[in-house]
Amino acid sequence: MNDLLLRACRRESVPRAPVWMMRQAGRYLPEYRAIREKVSFLELCKTPELAAEVSLQPYRILGVDAVIFFSDILIPVEAMGIEVSLTDRGPQIGNPVRSSSDIARLASPDVDRAFPFTGRVLGLLRRELAGQAPLIGFAGAPWTLGAYLVEGGGSKNFAAIKAMAFSDPQRFHSLMDKLARTIGDYLVYQIESGAQVVQLFDTWAGELHPSDYEEFALPYTRKIFEVVGDRAPRILYLNGTPALLESMARSGADVLSIDWRIPIEEAHRRVGDEIALQGNLDPCLLLGDPDRLRSRTAEILDAAPSRGHILNLGHGILPATPVDNARAFVDAAKTYTRA
Amino acid sequence: MNDLLLRACRRESVPRAPVWMMRQAGRYLPEYRAIREKVSFLELCKTPELAAEVSLQPYRILGVDAVIFFSDILIPVEAMGIEVSLTDRGPQIGNPVRSSSDIARLASPDVDRAFPFTGRVLGLLRRELAGQAPLIGFAGAPWTLGAYLVEGGGSKNFAAIKAMAFSDPQRFHSLMDKLARTIGDYLVYQIESGAQVVQLFDTWAGELHPSDYEEFALPYTRKIFEVVGDRAPRILYLNGTPALLESMARSGADVLSIDWRIPIEEAHRRVGDEIALQGNLDPCLLLGDPDRLRSRTAEILDAAPSRGHILNLGHGILPATPVDNARAFVDAAKTYTRA
Repeated sequence: MNDLLLRACRRESVPRAPVWMMRQAGRYLPEYRAIREKVSFLELCKTPELAAEVSLQPYRILGVDAVIFFSDILIPVEAMGIEVSLTDRGPQIGNPVRSSSDIARLASPDVDRAFPFTGRVLGLLRRELAGQAPLIGFAGAPWTLGAYLVEGGGSKNFAAIKAMAFSDPQRFHSLMDKLARTIGDYLVYQIESGAQVVQLFDTWAGELHPSDYEEFALPYTRKIFEVVGDRAPRILYLNGTPALLESMARSGADVLSIDWRIPIEEAHRRVGDEIALQGNLDPCLLLGDPDRLRSRTAEILDAAPSRGHILNLGHGILPATPVDNARAFVDAAKTYTRA
Repeated sequence: MNDLLLRACRRESVPRAPVWMMRQAGRYLPEYRAIREKVSFLELCKTPELAAEVSLQPYRILGVDAVIFFSDILIPVEAMGIEVSLTDRGPQIGNPVRSSSDIARLASPDVDRAFPFTGRVLGLLRRELAGQAPLIGFAGAPWTLGAYLVEGGGSKNFAAIKAMAFSDPQRFHSLMDKLARTIGDYLVYQIESGAQVVQLFDTWAGELHPSDYEEFALPYTRKIFEVVGDRAPRILYLNGTPALLESMARSGADVLSIDWRIPIEEAHRRVGDEIALQGNLDPCLLLGDPDRLRSRTAEILDAAPSRGHILNLGHGILPATPVDNARAFVDAAKTYTRA
């Protein structure tokens, strides 16, 4: 029984920090690539047996302390009527959302029926794990999902969604409302299906000025976390966090997952002891010299609060990562002893 | 005679904040697009009469308080032997720099001979401006130039240059040394040719953890600013600044040009009164409602220090910007009166 992650989320005393990695089920693992040769990314997400298999790979191969189910943040918007394709250049949206009628047309899916594969993969994983490691559910936050929908894919400057927010806030808020309702229900469904922790990814919210974050992104994160309530610990991830920490701390999150741009001791000082922290090694450190990787990981573990820290990367693990470096990162957490 | 910019760089008292916009000579102006229809971007950079013409357009059309000469940060690396092409998808490098021998092969150009067009455009602009507005020179910082050279173009995660820095710091530092020497000389040459202020763009340094910024980027910025010395005020621009402000303040810069991710009053509080600030409106605000644009600009002017502030965007003006909004931004500075 390994419940380190659950205890760290509640800021309870733990013998050592739990460790997992964002995108830990991914292309850096040969075992993952072998499965992906036979099936597309979206098919893999929707085939519960295969999705469970790749979700478990990093747990079996590297011994991470938690399993996150294999999926994509754009899965729920497909059920809202969005045409999603995942290409080498990132996600592409076939029918970008721009006008009020585009927004009005978006469906409000019945989560119990729309995502049977999500329910099944979570059920399979809980059975397979049998309490040996906690199971993490996740979804994308409305700002980040909205960015893909409005931009039609990834973006360098997020000009289209910001132009909508800045020129027609009412239209923008109607889109966010719809997304927040679906995502809130979707996370509750994940918890009812077996997820023991949920992480909300607001990957692109770091592109916003703090006052714009508070106006355009934070209210929807807060709504979703209210809907989730105390069913499970809530983790909020942002990329580009330094100026948004205090706002994030008011989101209702139990844990803030921070990127590598800020020293974790500074994040701790700014948000205080009432909220746990997850992070925050630059994933590029896993591409380089293992000694540097180990010493930088130890620096994070030295500087993080002794209660309420989950070791993780500051962003997803990169496909070019040597498996030995991923293992060195996980082992660094397991063998660490505080000076 | 408009020397507001020069006085603001020295933190002298000014009747109002000077204003200009990064990439102010650009595609949002129909007059610029008319010239670009006839000539490629790089040809435009290297044709002094045309480069001077587009440099002056924002000054004549919008009345900005400073002129920056039209060029590209990759121009000096061409003279080092790098094959540069500028595509719709951003810069592409024909011969990416990876190995020690790639680095050894890089030429150290004689700046007096390698950039005659730069000298000529600066001379033309000084004569044309006749002291009515200051002339800004610029270059890319070694980290940012190195990122293009090693990645072979733009990047989502800067994995290649970080992998080099993290796994073979000696190789990385030899590349940075060469770039820093060329850029230092190049900026001095610009000043000797007529530039009255210089701005160093370290656009991608915000991707670095503060300790990595101090190890891999800051030393080269500092070297360049030492070479420039007190020949002209030195502005340092970073995108993704919030956690790096204190480090940037130790670069030798007279002015820190900050992105929109941090409230300017917080930046001021953190770096103190001994350094001027430039910025920091989100350029996407120029795509939206003019009232919001004006009120957000006024908020910056209210919050910025009364001495040592240059109004600017937090990043380059976007091609889709309506000219009327660019004018509204410039006019906001000119008509502002502090409450």
